[in-house]
Amino acid sequence: MNQNLFRLKQTFCSIITIGDELLIGQTIDTNSAWIAQQLNPIGIPVKRRIAVGDNKQEIIDALERERKDSDIIIITGGLGPTSDDITKPVLCEYFNSGLVENEVVLKHITSYFDRRNRPMLQSNLLQAMVPEVCDVLFNEEGTAPGMLFKDKGQVIISLPGVPNEMQYIISTHVLTYLKANFKTPNFNHRTLVTSGEGESFIAERLKDFEADLPPEIKLAYLPKINIVKLRLTATDIDDSTLETQFSRLKKILQNISIIDADLELEFVLGQILATNQKTISVAESCTGGSIASRITSIKGASAYFKGGIVPYSIESKQNVLDVQENTIHHFGVVSEETVIEMAQKCREKFKSDFAVSVSGYLEKKDHDNAVWIALSSANTCLTKKIIAPYDREKNTILVANAALNLLRIFILEQLSLAS
Amino acid sequence: MNQNLFRLKQTFCSIITIGDELLIGQTIDTNSAWIAQQLNPIGIPVKRRIAVGDNKQEIIDALERERKDSDIIIITGGLGPTSDDITKPVLCEYFNSGLVENEVVLKHITSYFDRRNRPMLQSNLLQAMVPEVCDVLFNEEGTAPGMLFKDKGQVIISLPGVPNEMQYIISTHVLTYLKANFKTPNFNHRTLVTSGEGESFIAERLKDFEADLPPEIKLAYLPKINIVKLRLTATDIDDSTLETQFSRLKKILQNISIIDADLELEFVLGQILATNQKTISVAESCTGGSIASRITSIKGASAYFKGGIVPYSIESKQNVLDVQENTIHHFGVVSEETVIEMAQKCREKFKSDFAVSVSGYLEKKDHDNAVWIALSSANTCLTKKIIAPYDREKNTILVANAALNLLRIFILEQLSLAS
Repeated sequence: MNQNLFRLKQTFCSIITIGDELLIGQTIDTNSAWIAQQLNPIGIPVKRRIAVGDNKQEIIDALERERKDSDIIIITGGLGPTSDDITKPVLCEYFNSGLVENEVVLKHITSYFDRRNRPMLQSNLLQAMVPEVCDVLFNEEGTAPGMLFKDKGQVIISLPGVPNEMQYIISTHVLTYLKANFKTPNFNHRTLVTSGEGESFIAERLKDFEADLPPEIKLAYLPKINIVKLRLTATDIDDSTLETQFSRLKKILQNISIIDADLELEFVLGQILATNQKTISVAESCTGGSIASRITSIKGASAYFKGGIVPYSIESKQNVLDVQENTIHHFGVVSEETVIEMAQKCREKFKSDFAVSVSGYLEKKDHDNAVWIALSSANTCLTKKIIAPYDREKNTILVANAALNLLRIFILEQLSLAS
Repeated sequence: MNQNLFRLKQTFCSIITIGDELLIGQTIDTNSAWIAQQLNPIGIPVKRRIAVGDNKQEIIDALERERKDSDIIIITGGLGPTSDDITKPVLCEYFNSGLVENEVVLKHITSYFDRRNRPMLQSNLLQAMVPEVCDVLFNEEGTAPGMLFKDKGQVIISLPGVPNEMQYIISTHVLTYLKANFKTPNFNHRTLVTSGEGESFIAERLKDFEADLPPEIKLAYLPKINIVKLRLTATDIDDSTLETQFSRLKKILQNISIIDADLELEFVLGQILATNQKTISVAESCTGGSIASRITSIKGASAYFKGGIVPYSIESKQNVLDVQENTIHHFGVVSEETVIEMAQKCREKFKSDFAVSVSGYLEKKDHDNAVWIALSSANTCLTKKIIAPYDREKNTILVANAALNLLRIFILEQLSLAS
């Protein structure tokens, strides 16, 4: 038997994020979600996530408390070079350890500043001082190394709070270590992404399905803005049982399904375009560039995204996008006629196979918050009017989601007609 | 004396967020940060933030534990109409309370579905059933009401996890209640936003300043992607002392300061443009619409933002933006010459006072990750080359920040020359 297996019971992880900025709301914690996403596939569920301030007693209390329930504690934050960063001295005190200089880290820090042609400070050099009792987790992306402490069969890992540095250390060192040293039950998720029906309606349709689920499979509803994700979680059950249930779920919700994996709409759209070697362009007024920016957030988007125009003023709808003055004058900037012209002109200008256009009002109570969306191909044009009932930020997401999903459906239909 | 004052010692709040989706990393918790931002100005610091799963014992344990340190507990999530939402039954059991139908909520739910022309389900009607012992916090934005429980001088508040619903209830009901019922020490922040120097360098410059700070004032460094925010926090000290220290800080960091308040770059830029009645436009290639979308995220942006072009293909740089084929052919798409033409053509097309353009490589290791930025006014053009050393997502933010800040400085200079 592998003597590295600390125990065979369910292993949990707790995530402790450190920083006053988390408690006054200046920073949104994206690290915890990312870490959880990495731990789940290797069968380590997150028990709890705790955020505490830059305060010695708070950090120690949280650590003590979490060690009662979890064998793996991942701490992020508080490793920077400035005086409000206290995680390292607190852990030294907690583990009763002195500091030693680590030569590898020291060399790395020196060359890190050399390569960037930036002068180095004493405070940066101090980051090469590490607790004697820890294993150093090398940080290629930054100057603060990660630290792994083993104590009473438990593992405590301290990482920098800067997302790309934390991600580098987890991917390169932590996952390998945990996989080798902890044996955990099989733990699996399948996610279906839907759009077009609210959470309660889907729940009504899934009543019988849910009642019939084996106890090892749990269904969760994850509502987003006009998107609902359905997640099946299976614990210690064979893959085929989960697959059978997931197939049933997909069949029931077929008419509103976007994709049978936890992927973003813009990624799904990109896959369709790349596979079929088709191109798109975007003319977006009220969404102000957010549809284009979501499309281009996907690596490889340049293969299918020709570009976009944000004609934010009436003038620019005419001068830059060539919408006829008459159309806007007669029907208004927010009208079916205007979005049709916007989509057609956009497709022509960018020489793309398809185009989507959007014009509407997103500010609450100014208007009736109508938004017109048009889709254009060489052969046809489709339009849809939607109502944006929320605030500016949420409405932008709502409209972008609607536009991307309508474009996805439109393209699939056009492709199937053509084949 | 006001008998509503529960106590005069420091009052803390703990935030408990509930949902399996938080622990498997499917959802990023933005609620906690927002809540903390509301509580700070009324002098209620957040002691801890805890995320637990949809599990009865976990919820009760977290509640018990937090009640040891905080007198106010705000719980979000788990109030939806589906079977994985268990917060309401758990709180009923915890407070030993039955459910009663609330007529106001019932009427609201009925009319909520009526207005949206959506049929209503039994599960929606059940949201009008509320614990007998709680005060109902009316939710105009959705169907799940908030609930306020008073117990042993402490207040436990349960809110829906949907951000706009939670925000509505906090703004409308919770803050007023807490202000009236808790007296807390004076607790103040001032934030300076800087760009151009790293955290360690600023720390070096602030060594003496920090050593001289009175013990009631704390300095924190909040590094973002090429932006560092400096925050002074004063506890129970007169405003003028904080202001004096903040003035000293501003003076030391004058050359890299953006704004002396915790505001976004796009907001600061918008204020300058609105005040001076000037307009801008954007031609962005590699940032793919994210500069435009950040500018338009500010309410009232239509007063100064004429629009943008995202010429994502070489072809569209020529056809849509009218950059000369020769320029691209001789100097390349990522070159000083190309961004100069992009900015000038953009300003002309949109008839704006100023324009910014961006072209570069954001994917790591493909190229040397050079990004060219150009700024154009009727009289002059400025350029800058930057290196984007991170991944696609972080580089997009880095370049957008750099472009927005360069545009801000460029406009301020042009305005001062003109006056």
